[in-house]
Amino acid sequence: MELSHIEHIGIAVKSIDEARKYYEGILGLTCYAVEEVKDQRVKTAFFKIGQTKIELLESTDPEGPVGKFIEKKGEGIHHIAFATKGIEGVLQDLDASGVNLIDKTPRKGAEGLDIAFLHPKSTYGVLTEICEDKNK
Amino acid sequence: MELSHIEHIGIAVKSIDEARKYYEGILGLTCYAVEEVKDQRVKTAFFKIGQTKIELLESTDPEGPVGKFIEKKGEGIHHIAFATKGIEGVLQDLDASGVNLIDKTPRKGAEGLDIAFLHPKSTYGVLTEICEDKNK
Repeated sequence: MELSHIEHIGIAVKSIDEARKYYEGILGLTCYAVEEVKDQRVKTAFFKIGQTKIELLESTDPEGPVGKFIEKKGEGIHHIAFATKGIEGVLQDLDASGVNLIDKTPRKGAEGLDIAFLHPKSTYGVLTEICEDKNK
Repeated sequence: MELSHIEHIGIAVKSIDEARKYYEGILGLTCYAVEEVKDQRVKTAFFKIGQTKIELLESTDPEGPVGKFIEKKGEGIHHIAFATKGIEGVLQDLDASGVNLIDKTPRKGAEGLDIAFLHPKSTYGVLTEICEDKNK
């Protein structure tokens, strides 16, 4: 299994407009894209830093996964995503190793990536995403 | 303020020996260092992936910061660390911007880095570390 880098860190926030004041105005990062991901019931905002993106996640539905996360835990780091090649094979390997896959096959995420989530029960508490940019 | 990349992601685990089975045996990362940081009351284990390190944190004291984190929230992502140059100036800028600094001046962290933490109340729920490797 080849994981090349941290593709992004997902951070749950109540309001992207509010949190941007910190990430842009104070940390000096640049938001290069805002995108709604309807099947995840989130609005996302992306900032690049080195190889990695910060992905702010604002819920568009209190019953969606990020809405529930914030209700239970408050704002904070939601998940980390590893970049890979050949995501289908990686998921098969993880499944064979006993990792509990939330997505057994890849689906489309923000920025057109193929993505799949691993259940935190199998990853020592870390909601983990595997993703591949097949346009690269 | 120049933040160049995500230096590391700190992940709180109950047992580094257990969690290594996942990070090494399943994800295929290599643990290149294990180090105790006495003033933080943790044992750390480092894995490199691209520009970023995964830093597993095992508490050596239930009353220490990671021990309390796990008791309250369970295992999971504990903090993210941004790499910078000129950390003293960066901290002054953050202070002037109204960010609540846990460390007003840098102290020594794992791997000999100069580090300082920002309070999650000022950073939309994300315990954030700023660090500089002055040997580079």
